[in-house]
Amino acid sequence: MAKVAVLGAGSWGTALSIVLADNGHDVRLWTHRKEQAEAINSTHKNEKYLEIMIPEKINAYDDLARAIQGVSAIVLVVPTKAIRDVCARLDTILEEKITLIHASKGIEPESLKRVSEMIAEEMEKYAYEDIVVLSGPSHAEEVGKRQPTTVTVSSLNEKNAKITQDLFINEFFRVYTSPDVIGVELGGALKNIIALGAGISDGLGYGDNAKAALITRGLAEIARLGTSLGANPLTFLGLPGVGDLIVTCTSVHSRNWRAGNLLGKGNKLDQVLDQMGMVVEGVRTTRAAHQFAAKQEIEMPITNGIYKILFEEAKPKDVVDQLMNRTKREEMDDLAVLLSNRYA
Amino acid sequence: MAKVAVLGAGSWGTALSIVLADNGHDVRLWTHRKEQAEAINSTHKNEKYLEIMIPEKINAYDDLARAIQGVSAIVLVVPTKAIRDVCARLDTILEEKITLIHASKGIEPESLKRVSEMIAEEMEKYAYEDIVVLSGPSHAEEVGKRQPTTVTVSSLNEKNAKITQDLFINEFFRVYTSPDVIGVELGGALKNIIALGAGISDGLGYGDNAKAALITRGLAEIARLGTSLGANPLTFLGLPGVGDLIVTCTSVHSRNWRAGNLLGKGNKLDQVLDQMGMVVEGVRTTRAAHQFAAKQEIEMPITNGIYKILFEEAKPKDVVDQLMNRTKREEMDDLAVLLSNRYA
Repeated sequence: MAKVAVLGAGSWGTALSIVLADNGHDVRLWTHRKEQAEAINSTHKNEKYLEIMIPEKINAYDDLARAIQGVSAIVLVVPTKAIRDVCARLDTILEEKITLIHASKGIEPESLKRVSEMIAEEMEKYAYEDIVVLSGPSHAEEVGKRQPTTVTVSSLNEKNAKITQDLFINEFFRVYTSPDVIGVELGGALKNIIALGAGISDGLGYGDNAKAALITRGLAEIARLGTSLGANPLTFLGLPGVGDLIVTCTSVHSRNWRAGNLLGKGNKLDQVLDQMGMVVEGVRTTRAAHQFAAKQEIEMPITNGIYKILFEEAKPKDVVDQLMNRTKREEMDDLAVLLSNRYA
Repeated sequence: MAKVAVLGAGSWGTALSIVLADNGHDVRLWTHRKEQAEAINSTHKNEKYLEIMIPEKINAYDDLARAIQGVSAIVLVVPTKAIRDVCARLDTILEEKITLIHASKGIEPESLKRVSEMIAEEMEKYAYEDIVVLSGPSHAEEVGKRQPTTVTVSSLNEKNAKITQDLFINEFFRVYTSPDVIGVELGGALKNIIALGAGISDGLGYGDNAKAALITRGLAEIARLGTSLGANPLTFLGLPGVGDLIVTCTSVHSRNWRAGNLLGKGNKLDQVLDQMGMVVEGVRTTRAAHQFAAKQEIEMPITNGIYKILFEEAKPKDVVDQLMNRTKREEMDDLAVLLSNRYA
């Protein structure tokens, strides 16, 4: 059994801690908020984030150095916005190079870095190749309830991917490995944009047909950008692509879907973020992907439409109607076009 | 404007008739049941199938010869089981070779023929190449309510595909073309098996994470079989694959999902089919796909598991648990394995 630190006590960090504790590991859950750490240790609940009892053997810390003392693996689950800060602090404390896993889903605006790239930039001991990403279709609430869930772990270092698989895998939590770090990270990050769109479509009162079309085109858009950045297009057919898209776009558990739903119902972004009270990664990722699309010269009509709704006050109905009404000469399936699945 | 006969007055045939009538075409809707034709003509409703008013200009017929008199296109939307009978009758009546479109979703057990192959076998005037298939993520109810919907039409004869696109396309009903008849037909047929599985998982009380994993693996399974039969694997990334899977697996409108849900809750197949009172294509398609998998030597664990539930009295919980608990050495994403997206 291993000693593992999970950094970030939101819903996903808490759920992953429960998986690790179920597997017999000594789990230390870190949060920067002292009162949250105290509440977890005294009540064994993390009320704002997860309606489930936390195993008593999980100890929460608000002191980062104490949390990581003697651990053989660290799981980073802080919001993408906090990754650089936390890693810079870790770099000064960490004495040995241990297994470093992240389960954060986002892309940094301006730099357009993925999370593993940000980590590698902030931590002297680690090369990009060492880092492991864990991603897949997984609502934290269901993982906390031990409902069957499958995820993918990916690293250029196969040994690190297998160590991570061994740490997490159990009867309810199935873990598969993939060498495609770029595809796994981008699938997890970009799907939040499409979830915002699916929520907007639902909020406008459109049906399942419209949402399925949006998700399908969203997948093509993700795959187009991903492929241009070196991802294997097939990754997007698997758990980190289709699987995660389905979960995030069709479930009321998804906070990105919920934020989109409120936008579709006519709320402004500020109101929505206030109401949510949790990080909505898709908002920041939309900004980054919008920049990425321009840089890579990739057509991303859904991303750009959502960007206009979020940051340029475009009306959700106008944007969605425009997306549905592209001329018939434009093929639906951008990826199929990309890969020549059309009449010659 | 064209004169078009729609053969089959179930929910999908009725919805497609409404689209054609909205586009100004003279639509004749055929059913083999006299009382249903009379009810449609007198009440402009098709109550068992679709809760929506039918435009008065749509005329229903129970006489096949009269229904197709003078039409320039026929849309076949009868259950797969009735395709051969109706086509054999058509073949004796039809005087000219006109546009022949089908929107039926299934595979014939034993012969393992797709619908377009069955049509070509029954009709002397038509070669397989002439036939057009229309498929995609489209609940009839939503199409009837003019909610945004996108579908794909496919034929080896590009001209026929474009004629079909022109007949159906409008502001709410977007129609895209594809040359991959095999992929489009198989996507539409096989997704019903996975929808049964998704319903079973939901009926057992499993969550969205489990369902997303099932759908993702189902997609890989469909793509594996499809590719072995000559389909373009990318078709399964588009509307006829991912799109249709999402709609059918995540919506209470889907009768295959509903049938699966009842099975998951412990009902026997006979009871379920009695309760549904409509054709559940996925049941017959599961039998055909199970035979196909053996013939093509393709691994289809989900299809085979559902076959066991339907026809061999296996317990739904045992089958789903077994599907979730494949060993970690087996990769989740069968398609990725097929196409080498794994550690060397």
